Amino acid sequence: MDELTKKALEYHERAPHGKLSVVPTKPCMSAEDLSYAYTPGVAKPVLKIEENSDDAYRYTSKGNLVAVISNGTAILGLGDRGALASKPVMEGKGVLFKRFADIDVFDIEVDEKDPNKFIEVVRAISPTFGGINLEDIKGPECFYIEEELIKRCDIPVFHDDQHGTAIIASAGLINAAKVVNKELSNMKVVVNGAGAAGLSCAKMFLSVGIKKENLILCDKEGVIRSNYPGGVRDVWKPFINDSGIETLSDAIKGADMFMGLSAKGVLKKEMLLAMANDPIVFAMANPDPEITYDDAKATRDDVIIATGRSDYPNQINNVLGFPAIFRGALDVRATRITENMKRSAAFALAALAREDVPESVFKAYGGEHFAFGRDYIVPKPFDPRVVPVVATAVAEAAIKDKVARITIDDFDEYKKSLEKRLG
Amino acid sequence: MDELTKKALEYHERAPHGKLSVVPTKPCMSAEDLSYAYTPGVAKPVLKIEENSDDAYRYTSKGNLVAVISNGTAILGLGDRGALASKPVMEGKGVLFKRFADIDVFDIEVDEKDPNKFIEVVRAISPTFGGINLEDIKGPECFYIEEELIKRCDIPVFHDDQHGTAIIASAGLINAAKVVNKELSNMKVVVNGAGAAGLSCAKMFLSVGIKKENLILCDKEGVIRSNYPGGVRDVWKPFINDSGIETLSDAIKGADMFMGLSAKGVLKKEMLLAMANDPIVFAMANPDPEITYDDAKATRDDVIIATGRSDYPNQINNVLGFPAIFRGALDVRATRITENMKRSAAFALAALAREDVPESVFKAYGGEHFAFGRDYIVPKPFDPRVVPVVATAVAEAAIKDKVARITIDDFDEYKKSLEKRLG
Repeated sequence: MDELTKKALEYHERAPHGKLSVVPTKPCMSAEDLSYAYTPGVAKPVLKIEENSDDAYRYTSKGNLVAVISNGTAILGLGDRGALASKPVMEGKGVLFKRFADIDVFDIEVDEKDPNKFIEVVRAISPTFGGINLEDIKGPECFYIEEELIKRCDIPVFHDDQHGTAIIASAGLINAAKVVNKELSNMKVVVNGAGAAGLSCAKMFLSVGIKKENLILCDKEGVIRSNYPGGVRDVWKPFINDSGIETLSDAIKGADMFMGLSAKGVLKKEMLLAMANDPIVFAMANPDPEITYDDAKATRDDVIIATGRSDYPNQINNVLGFPAIFRGALDVRATRITENMKRSAAFALAALAREDVPESVFKAYGGEHFAFGRDYIVPKPFDPRVVPVVATAVAEAAIKDKVARITIDDFDEYKKSLEKRLG
Repeated sequence: MDELTKKALEYHERAPHGKLSVVPTKPCMSAEDLSYAYTPGVAKPVLKIEENSDDAYRYTSKGNLVAVISNGTAILGLGDRGALASKPVMEGKGVLFKRFADIDVFDIEVDEKDPNKFIEVVRAISPTFGGINLEDIKGPECFYIEEELIKRCDIPVFHDDQHGTAIIASAGLINAAKVVNKELSNMKVVVNGAGAAGLSCAKMFLSVGIKKENLILCDKEGVIRSNYPGGVRDVWKPFINDSGIETLSDAIKGADMFMGLSAKGVLKKEMLLAMANDPIVFAMANPDPEITYDDAKATRDDVIIATGRSDYPNQINNVLGFPAIFRGALDVRATRITENMKRSAAFALAALAREDVPESVFKAYGGEHFAFGRDYIVPKPFDPRVVPVVATAVAEAAIKDKVARITIDDFDEYKKSLEKRLG
């Protein structure tokens, strides 16, 4: 057994088993305490909530509670391993929500693969929560599931595997373009990997400024085109490219950006060499990227490369997104997460990476110094500025989009209160 | 607004709103911690659990996690108020589980009244949990719901509104009979209120020693009989009594025990006077019992009276049951809660009340002294001996019934470990 396996299993097994526990937030030791917490006192908030459902946010934990829900059909990169086996991942996500944004999470593992039945289960339990984070649900069902749940629930529903990477990668793309002095509207982009995350990235790139005619979507059999071997999935249709280019090698010629959500080693050196000047490569395959940081740098010294790895610069990590997005959405009691809220999150993240980094952040990274440039295009995951800045942007966008049920008068004040709460 | 309302609403509203929060149980501050808690380390327990589902108890919080689930159709005594409005009650139950038995609870409010759909929702999310406590679900659906879920889930499913009161009342009945020197097998019992709790009490009384021919079940229109006005419900059929007695007043003549799960003031003085010598009255209507402690005592000085109230002797409170029952069931990883486990809980509770009370327990009650007798037939809710004693009995019964998936070698040792854990 390797060292990581040993340590990870020990970490999970050590008593109390697992990673989450539930604790009362109010005194509950005396008979008097319990007369408020339970009978007879508890009848009072029951009647208030029946009268006005918004009172659930006053008298229960709903408003700070997110469900992290999976049916285990696409766990990490491991495929369908069943609902129960997804529990360590969902608990882990709960740990991240708490650690980064002080959000309470119930992890819910749903033994149901039929999309319609799964939707019905999640909708039925939705009154419990202030928001729903879907996780590790396989495509293409995940698109329909998210879409339907957004329609049927009055709280935000967010499939992180789709939007998480898309938002952080968009922030990275915005900044990489600035570093190399290119306009997004002129850049040619290849997205390789047309699953949930790849499709969401493609959509998000269009939403932050890439032109549709400049974006090519590829999957295992090359460019998504009308005669794609095995057929074109419904969700690919908006990206069909019948220009005659069929292979990734051809698609990537002259491209300004390669976004990989595919597999280890897919981006060959000759492909990288065929890209435009100052090429931008986001190689997200996990744990081994489409091309390693070192190989990319050795091939071209004008490349900007980002990966999912914490041991190289430019880590594109979902944790830069979901905690802040839900923090902002919960704090204005948003009914959904709009495109504009996601885009605002991306732009806020990008703007933060262009700011001077305070010494305190360097300290969190063992004194390592970094500044906006080729090797620092997105904030680092442990930067405590991330959640306050991004949550504020998300909350502001929710209010503008009229999906917020409460407003914020002073966004600076709100951001400061988050810095204090999470600091 | 009266004082209780004011204080109960303040208690619930004070930040953080509501009563429960979720916290990580493992370190999660450094990048290294998160490499075990989340990617890449978390993949290891995923694969272990896929290989052997029992490993979910090793590597996740499942084994100490109970779902408290309601659809809000019978909240407290308030009737159908909707799923969302039940949240304060379900969170309160979570507080009690934690306070008394160190069990983690996710409260789940299910917006679904159709019994079959409700069952499907709960079954689908059941992998998440080590046990399921159903709560505040109206009859008669609650019987079918519990029955089906017991069949479809591999973890204990327990509808506390049915069995909770039944178990504690049975303990009280066993002891009251001892106090007045009567044999259960000769005692005549009237159960008034043929809802979920009443039916469960009737069944449980038979299971601890009352003879079927000596038990009369009544509801609003008197004795449950073939020509009961409005028709006989299926669940009543085992209790049909066609001896010709129709009214509660007639049924109660010469009865040794009255079990009320009905309404304020239902037990008239003349009815109490018509009962046998040393009558036992459990008047459970909440918050105002079928007869008050004071009225009962003033009517007959040979009465033993118990109620649900904390401000009089002999409080029959569910909290004496569910925390210990789930503690024992979880600790041996029981697949279900058998009749024998419930009966063992009742006998263990009864036996405990007959033991000498240590000074430490008196201290918990402000120095008030009490000893086995007419005014102390069940342990008090804040007696720290209750959960260790009852959980041990439940665990032992589960092992005997072969529904335990792990065994306990030394029950004394187990009880001591609980005393230490919960002390």
